[in-house]
Amino acid sequence: MTEKKTNEQERIILGVDPGTTILGYGLIRILGKNPELMVLGSIELKKYDDHYIKLKTIFERITQLIDEFHPDELSIEAPFYGKNVQSMLKLGRAQGVAMSAALQRSIPIFEYAPRKIKMSITGRGSASKEQVALTLQKILKIKKLPQNLDATDGLAAALCHYYQTSVAVVNTTTPYKSWKDFINQNTKRVKKN
Amino acid sequence: MTEKKTNEQERIILGVDPGTTILGYGLIRILGKNPELMVLGSIELKKYDDHYIKLKTIFERITQLIDEFHPDELSIEAPFYGKNVQSMLKLGRAQGVAMSAALQRSIPIFEYAPRKIKMSITGRGSASKEQVALTLQKILKIKKLPQNLDATDGLAAALCHYYQTSVAVVNTTTPYKSWKDFINQNTKRVKKN
Repeated sequence: MTEKKTNEQERIILGVDPGTTILGYGLIRILGKNPELMVLGSIELKKYDDHYIKLKTIFERITQLIDEFHPDELSIEAPFYGKNVQSMLKLGRAQGVAMSAALQRSIPIFEYAPRKIKMSITGRGSASKEQVALTLQKILKIKKLPQNLDATDGLAAALCHYYQTSVAVVNTTTPYKSWKDFINQNTKRVKKN
Repeated sequence: MTEKKTNEQERIILGVDPGTTILGYGLIRILGKNPELMVLGSIELKKYDDHYIKLKTIFERITQLIDEFHPDELSIEAPFYGKNVQSMLKLGRAQGVAMSAALQRSIPIFEYAPRKIKMSITGRGSASKEQVALTLQKILKIKKLPQNLDATDGLAAALCHYYQTSVAVVNTTTPYKSWKDFINQNTKRVKKN
């Protein structure tokens, strides 16, 4: 399940942060070396009182995203600890449901701890949601960030997975693959001749 | 989701005990007043090293059972506490995956704590696996119990749900719905004229 693809192929990664009050998701497309944003969104789950309606909504939306955008891989933000056993059971169910949507379509699943994702995107495991969102905005040239930053957590999971499986950047803490890449992604920070 | 059906309709209940090393399942059919055994089985999950293969196996087998036997409801044995947050996360995932299989087919889900199931079947919340299995054997006229009693835990969840939603036996601890019913199910214990 850790098979790597070469950069020449088109590759689409669906990232999901399956919480029990909000689920954030993002899709990126990699053709060549630059990841591009395809979709960024979130599902409000608070409004559903019924636990099963929440789970059904997660399952259906992830299935829809898979059937519409045909991602090659699913990357999940998966905390491995929690406040208590009750919250972990709920989180496990939400994760299990999101995973089922991928499993039914035989899409390989990868999971990353929140700290790993933050480290991969910003270079700091303790980065804030805002810092992660702003870094994503720069890298993926997002015009306007959503008000609710939980959406970007899903997207961060997708980009983290790309970095972790893209040979060129393995074992680095910066999201830039080369100096040219850095320049391309930070035009305002680099003086032009 | 708690809508009750009348006894006149045929009703099929799928019961599942989704563990992470073994998954037990059982199907009962109720036509009139007597529940009948349809299927009793289990899936060994220990043999799969890969966590996702385990989850995929759960999803596929439950989906198969649903598509083959068309149950009206899914009843799940669902412990709400565990040794630690790690085991609860794993259990939550297994539950979430089993639930997804029902959710994708719009089958309502009901869950019962292990103690509630034992109480419902045997009249004692602290009954052993063996006692639950033997009671099930009598009630459902099972010729031979499986060696692995985890299979019967799924069946117990199905029967528990039937008892909990069957008006005639709500608020009783005995599985017998009438004196006639008791005689029918315990022919050896009743002297014939």
